Amino acid sequence: MNFADKLNKAIKEKNSVVCVGLDPRLNKIPSFIQESALKENKDKFKAAAAAILEFNSGIIDAVCDLVPVVKPQVAFYEIFGEEGMRAYRQTIEYAHSKGLIVIADVKRNDIGSTAEAYADSYMGTVDVFGEETSVFDADAVTITPYLGWDGIKPFAEKCAEYNKGIFILVKTSNPSSGDLQDLVMNDGRSVYEIMGMLVESWGAEDIGESGYNPIGAVVGATYPDQAARLRELMPNTIFLVPGYGAQGGGAQDVKPCFNKDGLGAIVNSSRDIIFAYENSIDYKEEDYAKAARAAVVAMNNDINKVR
Amino acid sequence: MNFADKLNKAIKEKNSVVCVGLDPRLNKIPSFIQESALKENKDKFKAAAAAILEFNSGIIDAVCDLVPVVKPQVAFYEIFGEEGMRAYRQTIEYAHSKGLIVIADVKRNDIGSTAEAYADSYMGTVDVFGEETSVFDADAVTITPYLGWDGIKPFAEKCAEYNKGIFILVKTSNPSSGDLQDLVMNDGRSVYEIMGMLVESWGAEDIGESGYNPIGAVVGATYPDQAARLRELMPNTIFLVPGYGAQGGGAQDVKPCFNKDGLGAIVNSSRDIIFAYENSIDYKEEDYAKAARAAVVAMNNDINKVR
Repeated sequence: MNFADKLNKAIKEKNSVVCVGLDPRLNKIPSFIQESALKENKDKFKAAAAAILEFNSGIIDAVCDLVPVVKPQVAFYEIFGEEGMRAYRQTIEYAHSKGLIVIADVKRNDIGSTAEAYADSYMGTVDVFGEETSVFDADAVTITPYLGWDGIKPFAEKCAEYNKGIFILVKTSNPSSGDLQDLVMNDGRSVYEIMGMLVESWGAEDIGESGYNPIGAVVGATYPDQAARLRELMPNTIFLVPGYGAQGGGAQDVKPCFNKDGLGAIVNSSRDIIFAYENSIDYKEEDYAKAARAAVVAMNNDINKVR
Repeated sequence: MNFADKLNKAIKEKNSVVCVGLDPRLNKIPSFIQESALKENKDKFKAAAAAILEFNSGIIDAVCDLVPVVKPQVAFYEIFGEEGMRAYRQTIEYAHSKGLIVIADVKRNDIGSTAEAYADSYMGTVDVFGEETSVFDADAVTITPYLGWDGIKPFAEKCAEYNKGIFILVKTSNPSSGDLQDLVMNDGRSVYEIMGMLVESWGAEDIGESGYNPIGAVVGATYPDQAARLRELMPNTIFLVPGYGAQGGGAQDVKPCFNKDGLGAIVNSSRDIIFAYENSIDYKEEDYAKAARAAVVAMNNDINKVR
């Protein structure tokens, strides 16, 4: 079963295409978690890592039966150095123990042996003095394509070898994504269309039983017209869709990302779920996990209506 | 003094534009270092990190009076999880203690608060329970521009705030770099030319006394014609030039990267320096640092002839 089949199976089982972004920010983590982490750890970096892991575990427990997949953004862990990276690894482990698929949002990109090192770190195994060990044992990673196929191939090979997936940035959700992605070529195609066609072709050899391949694309909810065009160009590619919620995308904006089978996209939300308690009158800080669960239920309903 | 001034001062003092790439691979580290690390550390990841730090320290000691700058590639540290990231942080610290400028080769790229988190991690300070602390305290980082200005701005702001630098991928050294970078627009310009002009404009407000700005560009030695074109388009931008040596570029290939003042570029070499002992009949494994020093002397001579 390739990564796409595995993901689609989980989507059907849970009737959800929601991806919960685990992007913890220390100063937004409920104070009771911060305080208990500081009490138990003298070292402030260790305390930060402990607070993050405790917070994430609460979110994971609250949403693991409702969604197929979570996506921890590594920047919010790396910021606490090696202790943060330990929390990143342990978050992936904990999510797996609760049956969730994990996308490591790392946007790595490099060539040759360097890209192989990244792929081994996040998708494969690493030789540590003769012992083959997994390190950050994710199911998929996000990749940036500026370097061309040389920067994709080492990751694509791991997809085949270990049944893992990648999501390549194609049309991103941010306001200035057009600086490069919307440039129009001399043949009339835009950079994002060309990238989309390349990504579709790179995955063409490994289409699974569910009709999709393990080489996915990142396509922002904030550009529904471009998403519709990419859906046309990339029938067998799964879209990872950021930009829903906090960034302004609604259910109607993500609709074009789906195929007629109701599959073909997962929609990410981070802040609006994990920090839902902040804007809620129904939930106190202590109930941050319950607030996250309620936000996921609402998001599942909202998106299932349009796919 | 902005980052460009600081770098150019070091280049003049040492009469060198060589950047030593600290890209350790555990299985290529001399066995006496591996064995001693294993003896002193039960945990294999800790032992791998100790071996890397010991190896790097030897290289740094041997080259610190000969070159202005080193560039550790994070993939080769991240591969050993949190212990590897500890070695990354400590390598940066050790290089600083020996007076070297450090470019963190991380090719990070994201938007908004996520990019800010990366910038804080590598170029600024992080608030850890109210304490402002630097984490990976580099002088500059490498950045990938697929996301447009939103993905550059948070890093560019740190350049101004902390006198740090960034190097943005423009034309990379790998064979398939043209997949995206060489696409030609409807106005006749290629993607790498457009990116080059954008990078030059992003740095235009902060040109230092030495005539350069802290927003640099990555321009591969393997494409000298494109480098010459970019030199023309980007008079005030410093190029970080990979591709010399192992990837096939020679001194004549890097020549177009320099301005008439003999500045404007630093040339990276990794394997050919740090693992010079492997291909040497003059040096044994124990003398890996001496072999690295000899390789740097030769590279300095080779490149100083053409600039």
